[in-house]
Amino acid sequence: MAWVTAVVLVAILQYVVLGMMVGVARGRYQVYAPATTGHPTFERLFRVHQNSLEMLIAFIPCVWLYGWWVSQTWATALGVVFLVARIIYAVQYIREPRSRQLGAGLSFLVVMILVLGDLYGVARVVLTR
Amino acid sequence: MAWVTAVVLVAILQYVVLGMMVGVARGRYQVYAPATTGHPTFERLFRVHQNSLEMLIAFIPCVWLYGWWVSQTWATALGVVFLVARIIYAVQYIREPRSRQLGAGLSFLVVMILVLGDLYGVARVVLTR
Amino acid sequence: MAWVTAVVLVAILQYVVLGMMVGVARGRYQVYAPATTGHPTFERLFRVHQNSLEMLIAFIPCVWLYGWWVSQTWATALGVVFLVARIIYAVQYIREPRSRQLGAGLSFLVVMILVLGDLYGVARVVLTR
Repeated sequence: MAWVTAVVLVAILQYVVLGMMVGVARGRYQVYAPATTGHPTFERLFRVHQNSLEMLIAFIPCVWLYGWWVSQTWATALGVVFLVARIIYAVQYIREPRSRQLGAGLSFLVVMILVLGDLYGVARVVLTR
Repeated sequence: MAWVTAVVLVAILQYVVLGMMVGVARGRYQVYAPATTGHPTFERLFRVHQNSLEMLIAFIPCVWLYGWWVSQTWATALGVVFLVARIIYAVQYIREPRSRQLGAGLSFLVVMILVLGDLYGVARVVLTR
Repeated sequence: MAWVTAVVLVAILQYVVLGMMVGVARGRYQVYAPATTGHPTFERLFRVHQNSLEMLIAFIPCVWLYGWWVSQTWATALGVVFLVARIIYAVQYIREPRSRQLGAGLSFLVVMILVLGDLYGVARVVLTR
């Protein structure tokens, strides 16, 4: 499962770097804690980071289970699509939130394939016992 | 651990569907990213989704560990209670936020039983070595 | 991996207790759902809880992988530093958000060491096959 785990770790690294950017943006745009609004660029970065968190809670367990139950190769391939989608999402959202559709749609599609694939995998195990 | 994993996957599916509903509500109630406020129904859906995320970070690792250390049957049963509690929570919160107590309390209770059961399980392993 | 798991469970317990405190603060400071702003003390507690969630999504998988690939002893030691850092963070943030630097920096540092150590661990496995 090393390749699948490598993808998970790169996704977490992307997310942690986004978190650092939010911290730096607090100072630069003078949005002092606990506020999360006050400057449009800060708000975009903050939402990109939050959305990445929202995706990771589903992506991390599901990509591992997909590697376990369906295919390590496909789990890795879908994971790489997810990593690219998250970069597209972040870059486009920060430039113009309305243009986030491609990155958002692609990362959502990957998570959906993983969840449904895993549910199929677990159903097969449970039902054939 | 297939049944416990099935419960985890259904919980993630519920959460991903809620995320889709938040996305659709952005358009319907004209709450454009990066805003997260502006229409009461959108705000309720958004908070239900966020609260589900807040619960999943504790529920997912804890229900697996409970299956591992305490009992797979009990982990599955508590997990099913959690799934039902999350549906009650979502339906009632969207109708009227003040009525969310039952669903919120029940999902919180399940997470507490899981965390404390796991801590007891791990303490027994660590202390009897 | 019992000690590493014990650290993960205490981190989740800290987080769940913070969640309870946010719930109690809603009543005390009259910040009714779905609002997340309205009283400075509530806003601080709410952000401390959210930030803990933001850290846990990286901390939980990474500390386990660190125990698995690098060293259980170091994973446990770094995990204990994280637990202490989260308490410092919560106490100082609630007192005065500007003083959160020590707790925030320390917990961020631990997560960074874990992510980079895991990436090194997984790279070694993948490349030496």
